[in-house]
Amino acid sequence: MDYYGKKIGSLIEELSALPGIGIKTAQRLAFYIVNMPKERAEALAFAITDAKNNVHYCKECFTLTDRELCPICSSEKRNHRQIMVVENVRDLAAYEKTGEYNGVYHVLHGAISPMLGIGPEDIKLKELMKRLQSDTDEVIIATNSGLEGETTAMYISRLIKPTGIKVTRIASGIPVGGDLENTDEVTLKRALDARTEI
Amino acid sequence: MDYYGKKIGSLIEELSALPGIGIKTAQRLAFYIVNMPKERAEALAFAITDAKNNVHYCKECFTLTDRELCPICSSEKRNHRQIMVVENVRDLAAYEKTGEYNGVYHVLHGAISPMLGIGPEDIKLKELMKRLQSDTDEVIIATNSGLEGETTAMYISRLIKPTGIKVTRIASGIPVGGDLENTDEVTLKRALDARTEI
Repeated sequence: MDYYGKKIGSLIEELSALPGIGIKTAQRLAFYIVNMPKERAEALAFAITDAKNNVHYCKECFTLTDRELCPICSSEKRNHRQIMVVENVRDLAAYEKTGEYNGVYHVLHGAISPMLGIGPEDIKLKELMKRLQSDTDEVIIATNSGLEGETTAMYISRLIKPTGIKVTRIASGIPVGGDLENTDEVTLKRALDARTEI
Repeated sequence: MDYYGKKIGSLIEELSALPGIGIKTAQRLAFYIVNMPKERAEALAFAITDAKNNVHYCKECFTLTDRELCPICSSEKRNHRQIMVVENVRDLAAYEKTGEYNGVYHVLHGAISPMLGIGPEDIKLKELMKRLQSDTDEVIIATNSGLEGETTAMYISRLIKPTGIKVTRIASGIPVGGDLENTDEVTLKRALDARTEI
């Protein structure tokens, strides 16, 4: 890439190190950035260092935030007796977008995976157990429905049960709008097992 | 997005303003960035402002570079009597990657498009005409093979012909490895018209 000179070359290099950004996309972005108005390029660079320097885990739920307690944990409108356990911040964002959940969260930052060598001590599980108070009504396990998510759900459930706190798991089944024909067998079986009377 | 706090929100906003970066990709990148080592995030931010502040058009061929003359225009190993005209810097990069071209380039930064209201005066055409010297051997027009690229090629060809300088157009036809079955009709027709004896 020495036909551009070093500065574009190193911008392309930095960009292509980001996940999901290949060399072609990095090139396209780099050319776009050098053609941006100066203020916009500076705003982008500032947002990067500003977020990096000031964003950390919420000390309660471990989501990413720039305060000590995230807006959800510090909100009096949320039900702090109901804790939804998710694998990562994107899953939290997905549930927040529904606008249907009014409890708080706990972000594990991963899932138990013997295959990848990720054990219970590698995710924020100790921290979850520490949060559980005598006034916690329910822990909703919303890990993904794949093998690792299920393993994690089972593990957490066994850990919490002895405390007497109610533990639930979000339902798996046919996605709304999905057709049976294109649904995999495991999902079909689960949907059958989880059938409810109507 | 106020459940993250403002700093992540504005990073996501800045990233999603980049071309081809949707809100989900921006989110994924933002989370990745805040989890990066501090030096790496700073290197990314620096590469952005450094490229923006120091990269401009080569005064000869109008590619992007951080010098007055780009490495290609200032190289004595290149044939400066052969000029390949391309629409943009990505196209230049594509030809450089082949390693098969030893002339210099001219970047138009666009193509003539009556539909989009882009006329000959909106691309670096005046600048191309100014570059043509009595010792220029050949101008190779390598604009894209779509309607706009062809219109531009035709226009440039008519402009240069009176000077007596040789003007050529890169060939269009079936891509190597492509099968006829999946090739569009226009390409098939062109490939037929441009057939050569073997």
